[in-house]
Amino acid sequence: MDPRIVDGLRAIVGDAGIETHPTRRATYESDGLAHVRRVPDLVLQPRDTRQTAEALRFLDQWKVPIVPRGAGTGLAGGATPVAGGVLVSTSRMRDVLEVDPVNRYARVQAGVVNVDLTHACATHGLFYAPDPSSQKACTIGGNVAENSGGPHCFKYGSTTRHVLGLVFVTATGEVVDLRGPMIDPIGLDLIGVFVGSEGLLGIATEVTVALVPVPPVVETLLAIFTSLDAACDAVTDVIAARLEPSALEILDERTIAAIEASVLAAGYPKDARAVLLVECEGTDLEVTTNLADITAILRRHGAIDLRRARAADERARLWAGRKGAYGAMGRIAPDLYVTDAVVPRTRLRELVRATTDICEKRNLRIANVFHAGDGNLHPNISYDRRDPGELARVLDAGAEIVRVCLEAGGSLTGEHGVGLEKIEGMEQQFSRDDLAAMCRVREAFDPLRRMNPGKLLPVRACMETRTRSPLGGSAP
Amino acid sequence: MDPRIVDGLRAIVGDAGIETHPTRRATYESDGLAHVRRVPDLVLQPRDTRQTAEALRFLDQWKVPIVPRGAGTGLAGGATPVAGGVLVSTSRMRDVLEVDPVNRYARVQAGVVNVDLTHACATHGLFYAPDPSSQKACTIGGNVAENSGGPHCFKYGSTTRHVLGLVFVTATGEVVDLRGPMIDPIGLDLIGVFVGSEGLLGIATEVTVALVPVPPVVETLLAIFTSLDAACDAVTDVIAARLEPSALEILDERTIAAIEASVLAAGYPKDARAVLLVECEGTDLEVTTNLADITAILRRHGAIDLRRARAADERARLWAGRKGAYGAMGRIAPDLYVTDAVVPRTRLRELVRATTDICEKRNLRIANVFHAGDGNLHPNISYDRRDPGELARVLDAGAEIVRVCLEAGGSLTGEHGVGLEKIEGMEQQFSRDDLAAMCRVREAFDPLRRMNPGKLLPVRACMETRTRSPLGGSAP
Repeated sequence: MDPRIVDGLRAIVGDAGIETHPTRRATYESDGLAHVRRVPDLVLQPRDTRQTAEALRFLDQWKVPIVPRGAGTGLAGGATPVAGGVLVSTSRMRDVLEVDPVNRYARVQAGVVNVDLTHACATHGLFYAPDPSSQKACTIGGNVAENSGGPHCFKYGSTTRHVLGLVFVTATGEVVDLRGPMIDPIGLDLIGVFVGSEGLLGIATEVTVALVPVPPVVETLLAIFTSLDAACDAVTDVIAARLEPSALEILDERTIAAIEASVLAAGYPKDARAVLLVECEGTDLEVTTNLADITAILRRHGAIDLRRARAADERARLWAGRKGAYGAMGRIAPDLYVTDAVVPRTRLRELVRATTDICEKRNLRIANVFHAGDGNLHPNISYDRRDPGELARVLDAGAEIVRVCLEAGGSLTGEHGVGLEKIEGMEQQFSRDDLAAMCRVREAFDPLRRMNPGKLLPVRACMETRTRSPLGGSAP
Repeated sequence: MDPRIVDGLRAIVGDAGIETHPTRRATYESDGLAHVRRVPDLVLQPRDTRQTAEALRFLDQWKVPIVPRGAGTGLAGGATPVAGGVLVSTSRMRDVLEVDPVNRYARVQAGVVNVDLTHACATHGLFYAPDPSSQKACTIGGNVAENSGGPHCFKYGSTTRHVLGLVFVTATGEVVDLRGPMIDPIGLDLIGVFVGSEGLLGIATEVTVALVPVPPVVETLLAIFTSLDAACDAVTDVIAARLEPSALEILDERTIAAIEASVLAAGYPKDARAVLLVECEGTDLEVTTNLADITAILRRHGAIDLRRARAADERARLWAGRKGAYGAMGRIAPDLYVTDAVVPRTRLRELVRATTDICEKRNLRIANVFHAGDGNLHPNISYDRRDPGELARVLDAGAEIVRVCLEAGGSLTGEHGVGLEKIEGMEQQFSRDDLAAMCRVREAFDPLRRMNPGKLLPVRACMETRTRSPLGGSAP
């Protein structure tokens, strides 16, 4: 990288805010989508909005790609610097700026870790609801970029439902300060379009989020099934009966085996074909009534054992297994391809089966651990990336899974984002006109498309917009 | 209007879809912001997405302004054709296209009336939650344009929380088809930015919305107060105590007098200084417990009478008064200026007082009926628009109310939108950079800014973007 760039940036962020050493830069070569790697030319760690804006204004002269990065826990390659350039990490923006318990919001720097925010408001009886499995590492800024979900988003909705304000810096170093809190958007809802934009519109530096009251009673139920089909059908029926648990998670036997063989051993029975984790929240009576109704449905679908946990430590153990499932599966094979897709909840069984068939006919091992209540599948395929033939089969299976889920009326991604992984699927999910509209919105923030190039929007779709608009007019 | 335009459009929408007669066009000269009027040059009533797209593609050759309109019940002038041009009404797009009770969504044409949608899904035990006071007339498309609220949005959130899909047509006749339903947005969230965009990005023709289960028990409580201050403080304390009613509405004595003198007479006591309507939903026990906790707080603040209504007809009567309040106030004076602004819920009493003072020192009559639970004030000022001096004082008071609420940390608008009415306030609420970003997003959809010109975004702010971007580059 041109030494004038390095010197200019060093003057803005100081020595502690810049990383030029190849070995240390190499730690940023990929995120959770492990098979795509490229070392960034430079890593920047600004301390706040001001430093970020100054750095981006400076970089605007050099027209290099800019790749925002939170904790790098994303599973779709959103933080991988595929086109090189400067990676901007939020790792030094970790301050909780304000907690307002009466108006129930918190304002934080983008690099605050998800679970730390919940800890910061625990004394007020409040918490931050979206809880990705990576919540001990992932950042609020990364959650905003990916519109992250989590088991409890079944009840509370994903990140976009919880963002009340945002400060972000665009490619040209402009600061858009919508810190709010705004219960409802005013003017054009730039917050709405920024959440989930995967770094293409800018880099969030501060986020104002809603906090919700900790429920008085929480109870977790572990239901054991003798088939994955039965667990899927049970979930479909719980949804159809309009019962309202706060989480509905299925783990299949391979996932259970991996967890029980790991340090996270959660006490899931090793001979189960599937387990279903159900959580209910509310008053004592609400929880009891709700669980009784749900239990009746589960038994009807052949649940052979139902274990209830109300004490915090018991519940924590059940959830630690679920949230540590990806880590535990690292034991099975060197690499794990974790994809996600959403299917109608009336067709869970059929589509879980279809994803299994897609993998098995390619001689791939699949394990399932997923947000069943949202119809959000997570087929996890074990592989060894040193075997190029196997990797090719994995990617081929991933593409077919997407296609099958879309054909069933589902969506490309539930919560992991599009990133690099799903970018081809965008042309299956959306028409040319839809993608062109997205590309023009992107260019409204970043005309040269320097922010996180190669992600979310297919290059081909964006090339087309060039000849159509924005200022070129659109006469017939 | 050029006869070639009329003929071209007639060929697309037929005789029934076009209105040229001056008297009939005149019915579209304003919306609920009664003092601003202009007759549109032509009124178009397309039947569906296809006709709308063809008409807009045709009109793109003529570069005329296009003004979308639902039922014209908006209170901020969003549907007033201030720059003339073609008004596109959704009044012939009234089909409910699909109700899916299991996956809990409905897909409707944009002109479907809000309450008709709720009626269409009643047999399934579901309803559409956002309930503006105008719900018997206003349309789902208009609700999307304005991100409308309503009393029950305190619990359920405003329109943006309920839109799962959208089909819209841009100024150039491009169809963006995001019909979904998508629980979470995929790609750039164009639905998020479209909701609340007040017709600047295009015209919605189909909307997919979430439906929610009708709660098993609903109870409405009417609490009588001897002062407006006490009612405000009671609401602040209910919020601070984290109780969860589904609606919290305050009506002051002038509003009560107007309602009780009208056909809607709801049985509100005429000697009360203020009444508070509280609604609770849930199971029998939840409602009973919740109301008991709320009642204790209300009594502490001096509520002198508490009337509970659980039967549907009793509840309907209490709500008919609230929802008919604007109509009833038509008895007080020839015209009514209904504004809205949001204030921190910890400062309700102080800011309701401030708005009263602002009006009284200008010798204006103010009545208050507002979504207290959301901190969403609705000062209603009676006036006679034939008296230009009085109108000037009303507008001046409106501007000061906005300023005071913004200074207190509030927002420009809660649910009525910016429209014409609040457009100057946008420059108080947002920085130049924020507005420039909004303008560029607008131009991503409509480079010539022909959609609903003069609304939402100040012309000055959008002029500035011209010299800065989008494709002009943004080098320092």
